Amino acid sequence: MPQYLATSDPDFSARFTALLAQKREADADVDADVARIIADVVERGDAAVIELTARFDKLDLTPETLAFSEAEIDAAIEKVPPDERAALELAADRIRVYHERQRPADARWTDPSGAELGWRFTPVSAAGLYVPGGLASYPSSVLMNAIPARVAGVPRIEICAPTPRGDVNPLVLLAARLAGVDRIWRIGGAQAIAALAYGTATITPVDKITGPGNAWVAAAKRRVFGRVGIDMIAGPSEVLVIADADNDPDWLALDLLAQAEHDSAAQSILVTDDAGFGQRVAAAVEARLETLARREIAGASWRDFGAIITVTNWDEAVEIADRIAPEHLEICTSDAEALAERVSHAGAIFIGALTPEAIGDYVGGPNHVLPTARSARFSSGLSVLDFMKRTTVARMSPESLRALGPAAACLAASEGLEAHGLSVTARLERLNAEPAE
Amino acid sequence: MPQYLATSDPDFSARFTALLAQKREADADVDADVARIIADVVERGDAAVIELTARFDKLDLTPETLAFSEAEIDAAIEKVPPDERAALELAADRIRVYHERQRPADARWTDPSGAELGWRFTPVSAAGLYVPGGLASYPSSVLMNAIPARVAGVPRIEICAPTPRGDVNPLVLLAARLAGVDRIWRIGGAQAIAALAYGTATITPVDKITGPGNAWVAAAKRRVFGRVGIDMIAGPSEVLVIADADNDPDWLALDLLAQAEHDSAAQSILVTDDAGFGQRVAAAVEARLETLARREIAGASWRDFGAIITVTNWDEAVEIADRIAPEHLEICTSDAEALAERVSHAGAIFIGALTPEAIGDYVGGPNHVLPTARSARFSSGLSVLDFMKRTTVARMSPESLRALGPAAACLAASEGLEAHGLSVTARLERLNAEPAE
Repeated sequence: MPQYLATSDPDFSARFTALLAQKREADADVDADVARIIADVVERGDAAVIELTARFDKLDLTPETLAFSEAEIDAAIEKVPPDERAALELAADRIRVYHERQRPADARWTDPSGAELGWRFTPVSAAGLYVPGGLASYPSSVLMNAIPARVAGVPRIEICAPTPRGDVNPLVLLAARLAGVDRIWRIGGAQAIAALAYGTATITPVDKITGPGNAWVAAAKRRVFGRVGIDMIAGPSEVLVIADADNDPDWLALDLLAQAEHDSAAQSILVTDDAGFGQRVAAAVEARLETLARREIAGASWRDFGAIITVTNWDEAVEIADRIAPEHLEICTSDAEALAERVSHAGAIFIGALTPEAIGDYVGGPNHVLPTARSARFSSGLSVLDFMKRTTVARMSPESLRALGPAAACLAASEGLEAHGLSVTARLERLNAEPAE
Repeated sequence: MPQYLATSDPDFSARFTALLAQKREADADVDADVARIIADVVERGDAAVIELTARFDKLDLTPETLAFSEAEIDAAIEKVPPDERAALELAADRIRVYHERQRPADARWTDPSGAELGWRFTPVSAAGLYVPGGLASYPSSVLMNAIPARVAGVPRIEICAPTPRGDVNPLVLLAARLAGVDRIWRIGGAQAIAALAYGTATITPVDKITGPGNAWVAAAKRRVFGRVGIDMIAGPSEVLVIADADNDPDWLALDLLAQAEHDSAAQSILVTDDAGFGQRVAAAVEARLETLARREIAGASWRDFGAIITVTNWDEAVEIADRIAPEHLEICTSDAEALAERVSHAGAIFIGALTPEAIGDYVGGPNHVLPTARSARFSSGLSVLDFMKRTTVARMSPESLRALGPAAACLAASEGLEAHGLSVTARLERLNAEPAE
């Protein structure tokens, strides 16, 4: 049974704080193992990667078979049914079109002092995308990671996708091809992250690593951060649904279950202004749970982490949303648009009853790689910018150096940085010895 | 003596690779200490912070004196000489004007399917800026961290600035006030980072922490990453100067020394197409070193990590720049602008002989917090965006849900996510039962 809270309860504040602080994932203490794996890959390269893949994935590889061949990819892709191919193509197109709008603009201007200033954006030289194996091997995630990199103009995109016992998801390979991925390595875990960050004889290192993964992958990403760029460390998925009583309880029950079925550590929360409606949604959840194939997972998530919060007005709902900073926020109220405007912290907002979060997972267009575990307070979903970086540009004219140089020299002196000051004053002396033009 | 390399040397490739791989900082293994400090602050709050400050900074504080009072700030600021105040104000104004151009635009559009899509940016609720004490207590860094946060619209900005034995840099306090900082805590080290991330009875936690620091601060930032956002972990500073023989060797010598004087682990590299000119710059460096107050530090940096690389053409210089991905890149050649365009990886570019890097440290306008240690390959200098996050928005119309829903349901089925599919098809069934408008 999910938790029931109401802002009118005298103990609401304490219970809501406890809900926020609830730990949904066990801390797997794999950091020491991961450090050893990374050191092993750095030292022994391909040999280490191959041994670790044999041990963890029960798969024997050679340097020649570390990557899928084009023929293998072709053969796998041929097995994809036409409707799935068409759906994946539609998704890829929509994600591409959305992300093309994110390409940042360069800028250059001359300011009143005569200084030319600006910035320009360039893509990283190579990106590595991690695609989990097994249950969480999602072709949609391949699109969501690879397409922004391609739109950014990244010239080389590598994927690491473990294939335990050799099992391959053909849709993952098709998604990689649709997204323009250059190479797919059938390796996973910390050894894959180490290979992407440090390279081996066979695997050329990349500059940025993104994509979800288990505790080993997360710990490895944290360790290679600095040597390469990484995206956020993703936690279990979550949804907050804000809804009034003018909604179909079954629709919202399915939206709550769509998060819950990801992972028993996922969290689904309903906020409503009508306690009776909350009960009807809860009943619909129970009814749907009976027939779901993943009812064990979804049921555990709903029982352990699900919550229904009754508010007395929508201001309270906005406050709750900002406290939770949900990865996904659905707003199904009569004034959904206005309510959405007032929320500050959320990864993605789905407005109106006809916008189930699942649309955003696949074909909406925006990225489905979103900040979890309240990190929407300070971070954003994956975007084209994650695969680019900004170089600032400055060019002084004689006038601007005359105008700004003395202040720079003064501040350099105050910070005790003599050569900083001299590098400016040596130029000013020459400029001042010459007649101004 | 710096290293001399020439691309025409037979062993250039190996020597350049060795130069890139050269380790400039000892790995201080403080991680276990830092973990204990963070746990202590989480458990005991103010009491832990106060004890650690007494131990490390030889400064006795109470919860009431953890922060500077307005009267203390006023009194300190009064001591700032008028020329330094004017210079700091000029710097603050220029940094503000530059960063105001970085404010990102929200977007919203309706696509051909009838789906409304877009994104909007919001600031983080609170930012914490770390300002090192002692030698590296730079008021310019206060401006460079706090002004982008203020321009982003961050409603609460806190600074942690250790004051060992109570020593205060009045310019740091003035810079904080000019930048609109809300509170200045006189604490430092890992305990300051822990207090900013977790809060204490006195210190309200923040959502994003930025700013440079020593090994303890860096390790603490790495550990709290995820609970709060952090900026890059900064390494020692570096400059790459690309110059032809039509330059004053003394100017470039001073630019090389301006980096070198920061830290004996800093790195200054000159790339030129004229070996004789390289020798003249090296001679000018030696001459200037004799009179510099910080000649010990600058001399050690130049001797241990300085390099002069002779190239046979500018293509090679571009390639070298991209391999190094320097924090600061100065280009002093006849075609400086064209050369700058061709470099992909650099934190900041300073174009032309009249643009010494020191201008950018203070009054240029662009941020001086820049990616070090080759991380310009994948990351950018500090900007307004570091204090904001993007929320994506989607709203389906009946037509767009009819157009996109079936593909979403198909992909959900292929990923084995039944509730995802049902959340879409339940809506489609109702829509299809109604006559299309």
